[in-house]
Amino acid sequence: MKKKEKLFSDQIRPLRDEIDRIDSDILSLLARRQEQVEKVVALKKACDMPVFHPAREEDMISRLRNQAKEKGLDPDVTENLFRVIIRQSRVKQTFRMQYKGVRPGAAVLIIGGAGQMGAMFASLFEKSGYRVRILTESDWENASKLCAGIDLALVSVPIEKTVGVIEKIAPLLPPQALLADLTSVKHEPVTAMCRRHTGPVLGIHPLFGPSTTSLDKQIIVITPGRDLDSGHWLVEQLGLWGAILVQSTPGEHDEIMEIVQALRHFATFCFGRFLFEQQVKIQRTLEFSSPIYRLELGMVGRLFAQDAGLYAQIIFATKERRELLKQFITSLNQHLDMLENKDTRTFVRQFNEIAQWFGPFSDQALRESTFLIDRLIERF
Amino acid sequence: MKKKEKLFSDQIRPLRDEIDRIDSDILSLLARRQEQVEKVVALKKACDMPVFHPAREEDMISRLRNQAKEKGLDPDVTENLFRVIIRQSRVKQTFRMQYKGVRPGAAVLIIGGAGQMGAMFASLFEKSGYRVRILTESDWENASKLCAGIDLALVSVPIEKTVGVIEKIAPLLPPQALLADLTSVKHEPVTAMCRRHTGPVLGIHPLFGPSTTSLDKQIIVITPGRDLDSGHWLVEQLGLWGAILVQSTPGEHDEIMEIVQALRHFATFCFGRFLFEQQVKIQRTLEFSSPIYRLELGMVGRLFAQDAGLYAQIIFATKERRELLKQFITSLNQHLDMLENKDTRTFVRQFNEIAQWFGPFSDQALRESTFLIDRLIERF
Repeated sequence: MKKKEKLFSDQIRPLRDEIDRIDSDILSLLARRQEQVEKVVALKKACDMPVFHPAREEDMISRLRNQAKEKGLDPDVTENLFRVIIRQSRVKQTFRMQYKGVRPGAAVLIIGGAGQMGAMFASLFEKSGYRVRILTESDWENASKLCAGIDLALVSVPIEKTVGVIEKIAPLLPPQALLADLTSVKHEPVTAMCRRHTGPVLGIHPLFGPSTTSLDKQIIVITPGRDLDSGHWLVEQLGLWGAILVQSTPGEHDEIMEIVQALRHFATFCFGRFLFEQQVKIQRTLEFSSPIYRLELGMVGRLFAQDAGLYAQIIFATKERRELLKQFITSLNQHLDMLENKDTRTFVRQFNEIAQWFGPFSDQALRESTFLIDRLIERF
Repeated sequence: MKKKEKLFSDQIRPLRDEIDRIDSDILSLLARRQEQVEKVVALKKACDMPVFHPAREEDMISRLRNQAKEKGLDPDVTENLFRVIIRQSRVKQTFRMQYKGVRPGAAVLIIGGAGQMGAMFASLFEKSGYRVRILTESDWENASKLCAGIDLALVSVPIEKTVGVIEKIAPLLPPQALLADLTSVKHEPVTAMCRRHTGPVLGIHPLFGPSTTSLDKQIIVITPGRDLDSGHWLVEQLGLWGAILVQSTPGEHDEIMEIVQALRHFATFCFGRFLFEQQVKIQRTLEFSSPIYRLELGMVGRLFAQDAGLYAQIIFATKERRELLKQFITSLNQHLDMLENKDTRTFVRQFNEIAQWFGPFSDQALRESTFLIDRLIERF
């Protein structure tokens, strides 16, 4: 045994040194790659070209997959690696280019610009060459002055204050100014804006929090109220900042958000509450758990690392939402008999019915979550 | 504008060619790295050394992070890249070494070896040099013959059949043979094994499905029944195959699985059921959704891509589980008043109470899930 260990330690050293040398060479190449990418960015900027070039990316990936196969490497692993590299270079590019202004010099008033979300947009507008003014709660006496000559008034206040603020600000606006809001419900604010303002109106719902560092590939829902043509420069600007824009009506938006936000967060809250009531030993369950449980419990923990007030706003926002959540609880009560009677037959029947209804989404979900689980195993 | 486009297309070509050359060089280095890793594997095999070397890995990562900083690269991105590369090489290494047998030549009888999980273990044992016999449902007349002289009997049948099968097989076993099972509940099977068999007894619960391609870093819970020393070779064998082993008692195991499996899957089932009842337009909600919603809905879709019968087994397995799930529904009913009265104050108070109870796990969960969301954005 001693002899084997000696043999091993003598022979492993040069192999490991060689691996370390190769890794260092890879790093040098990555640094050179980064320099080239920076030249591409400078060129794109000089020529007013967009950063993201989906065709070029997919092209590169296909070529790299083929080369990987030729060289005896796993094409999937190679694709993952280069997606990381490419995304990093895209974030860097966006970071440098996102500040291009569509209407630099235009005057933007952000109502609630001292809040987190308002401050984030204020900073983006400023960096893109807009003249930004901020209206805070304590500043209403100057509101008329702040509204003079503005091109855009952007309402960024808590949900329950939105309609009141719209009613106060609208009469002070120049008639041709664009009035927009960032609220996470859209029917009431857009209706109020259209009623009180005669100029262009745009509802905006950014689907991310103020802690987001880049708008790259972040989703923003747009619900036009009136005269989208006049407001289109703002939509373009959001796109230039890197966001993906989804157009909808206020009604459809609110209906979908009942599910995407209210129901989902409420269900997560209920799950967390039950773990608390049962005083479940979280850390011990994690030791026992597959990556997928870790991921799911992580979604629960994630909620409670955030602001209670924000989630209260989202969950209790409208009467429709509260009704939906009550229906959700009613739906669960239907399962009591099944549990009481150990009725696995009903369970299997319902399960298969739902599976069929989900259709191809289930398989897609299985693939995507398996991909993520692999990343999680890699990392932790 | 035309002029700008001409300028751009003239100048971008050489830059892109250079990037493509660099990428190709990176691939060549990765291929050379793979060759070196293969030499390391051969050496480890010759010297009976383990594949995974946590200290060496963390060492490499720290060094690479420092080198990255020196070369002007982002250290986090660099770490991510090399974790992918290293994991790939570890999987390859495990793949080649996992078949080393702790007791090659020993006779293993797998009861239910024609099922998916049984077949997976049968294949692992065979590749590691064991003499594997399979007992299927239609083969009980040969059971005595199949049991003659075996070293291990491994029960791999559906939960509800486990105790019956144990009672049938135990009297046929050589007294010194190890009796083990793979069921996802542990109290009843381990009790039954200890009652009916006088030799060593080991409860095993692999926390993964039969579709898993490698045991690398997969978790297996071990609940010893009797004489762990005599059964220890099997625990070692599972470790050699790459699994992470967690030791527990049958009671603790079952209590934790009520949460990790039954409650979680049931809650997911209820959520999916409600989406179905409401006929929610899944695809449209995905267009509106942040990556985190996509991830959470993916967890729901994932469930329904799998076998209804398997989940019925898990959810309805024991009376304790069914009681816990009824309590879960009861817990939700408590929230009806809060919704009815738009009582955000109670919501915020409960939310903060739970957040405090979760403690540091919440922040960890936020970090981990943010990491995954970034991977998801990269990919899709």
